[in-house]
Amino acid sequence: MQILDGKKTAEALSAELKAEVEALVAKGERRPKLVAILVGNNPASETYVRNKEKKCAELGFISEIRRFDTEVTEARLLQEIDNINADTTIDGLIVQLPLPKHIDEQRVTHHILPKKDVDGFHPVSLGRMLLGLPCYFPATPYGIIKLLAYYKIPTRGKHVVVLGRSHIVGLPVANMLLQKGEPGDCTVTVCHSKTENLPEVLRSGDILIAAVGKADFVKADMVKEGAIVIDVGINRVETDKNPKGWELRGDVAYNEVAPKCSYITPVPGGVGPMTILSLMINTMRARKGEIEE
Amino acid sequence: MQILDGKKTAEALSAELKAEVEALVAKGERRPKLVAILVGNNPASETYVRNKEKKCAELGFISEIRRFDTEVTEARLLQEIDNINADTTIDGLIVQLPLPKHIDEQRVTHHILPKKDVDGFHPVSLGRMLLGLPCYFPATPYGIIKLLAYYKIPTRGKHVVVLGRSHIVGLPVANMLLQKGEPGDCTVTVCHSKTENLPEVLRSGDILIAAVGKADFVKADMVKEGAIVIDVGINRVETDKNPKGWELRGDVAYNEVAPKCSYITPVPGGVGPMTILSLMINTMRARKGEIEE
Repeated sequence: MQILDGKKTAEALSAELKAEVEALVAKGERRPKLVAILVGNNPASETYVRNKEKKCAELGFISEIRRFDTEVTEARLLQEIDNINADTTIDGLIVQLPLPKHIDEQRVTHHILPKKDVDGFHPVSLGRMLLGLPCYFPATPYGIIKLLAYYKIPTRGKHVVVLGRSHIVGLPVANMLLQKGEPGDCTVTVCHSKTENLPEVLRSGDILIAAVGKADFVKADMVKEGAIVIDVGINRVETDKNPKGWELRGDVAYNEVAPKCSYITPVPGGVGPMTILSLMINTMRARKGEIEE
Repeated sequence: MQILDGKKTAEALSAELKAEVEALVAKGERRPKLVAILVGNNPASETYVRNKEKKCAELGFISEIRRFDTEVTEARLLQEIDNINADTTIDGLIVQLPLPKHIDEQRVTHHILPKKDVDGFHPVSLGRMLLGLPCYFPATPYGIIKLLAYYKIPTRGKHVVVLGRSHIVGLPVANMLLQKGEPGDCTVTVCHSKTENLPEVLRSGDILIAAVGKADFVKADMVKEGAIVIDVGINRVETDKNPKGWELRGDVAYNEVAPKCSYITPVPGGVGPMTILSLMINTMRARKGEIEE
């Protein structure tokens, strides 16, 4: 059994990305710039945005947070997005969710120009993904792909079983692994809460991607011997093992599943660190103009 | 074994659609209008467009074909699409493919306003589909869904295996059947030419959708006993059984597979008649303004 070390992989890819930025700067070119729109003061949102800001600083990207009070109108946000869409010094824009209830999240996020949609959740980004056209990939699925690629895990013809059909992880990663080329060319099954005979379906996976959001949901008897297991879950579980009173646990019952696997991602330190890195890769791709319009 | 009769189903749904048009007209409202852009004189394209025209006439829709010589420039086509996008008396626009080689098909088809994209191939349409938002569905997958619905076949939790990963059929139908509600809520596997152990994968399907484009590819030993089989293939195969010298055959070896099935679509008369009907349903939905922007 080998660990798919997301922390180490993200560090290696970060070093590459940083070198790429410095090469740009050495040629007299502009650094990549990411702007985050942050409304209100939700503590989790503050943390997410701060982490993205830190990662930008580490890689030599420029970042900026545009803050708005909870009372901001939707029209004001749309206007701000117009400004950012038109600003050629800004490569990528993310709107930190959730937004206050009086604002239509969909209208706001879909107002981002697809070529600046580094979160990859715009319908145009997802539609292009399905069509196999150049596009931004949502960060978590992209992180999974990058991790498989880093460890040179062959995927062609393999059976991938994805547990969970969210728009954030399950559906995009399924569609990405169905595309031609590697990582990709997989047989892909998506299963979820309505699936009949779930353990049997899970056991058919050469590669199992668990993105169901339930701690320790996947047990040893649901995993094929020798499978590659990617655990996307980040669940807070109460514990008396530490003074905080909680710990992070994945969707996979790691201790019993790991011995059966050929590869497995730990939680934390698996998919998590790859996710923020993927946002940065998207931002660099935006800087290089890889996605038109 | 019961036949899923696409011809009969399409007739029944056509009658409903026709009644809906007449109800509109009785209220003094405008009939749905579909415009097709046709470039050159490819005989197959002529046939397809003529069939759509006929279907429009049958249902009381207005249709119009805008013809261009093979030498037409891309700029001229884009301008025509701008005109149609802006014309509030036109509900749906299709560009018949293929286009001549000097024209970028993608640029042209993506120029159609998503709210008039009744073919459902615009990235915005496919992205909205993946997000579970209101959208036009591509005609063939939509026809399959409508056929399952008409026969009230329960799909929740069932394992659907889709053979083929094209943008036209395989990927959209897989994503549609993964959405919540019925027909949908399925476990979905997509397999294709790179799939290992293909017969075994196909045999796991409670519902098998064959969209591989190879005559008689799916044999009896690849199908689960009691499965529901949807045959999307329309393959011309040489024969001495008739004076034409060819006949249409599906992707499924019908004679040996049918006895194992609970339901099966014939070829012709299965998915085919549902496809053109689906385009008409999309056009009616456009007429009713169901899809914004």
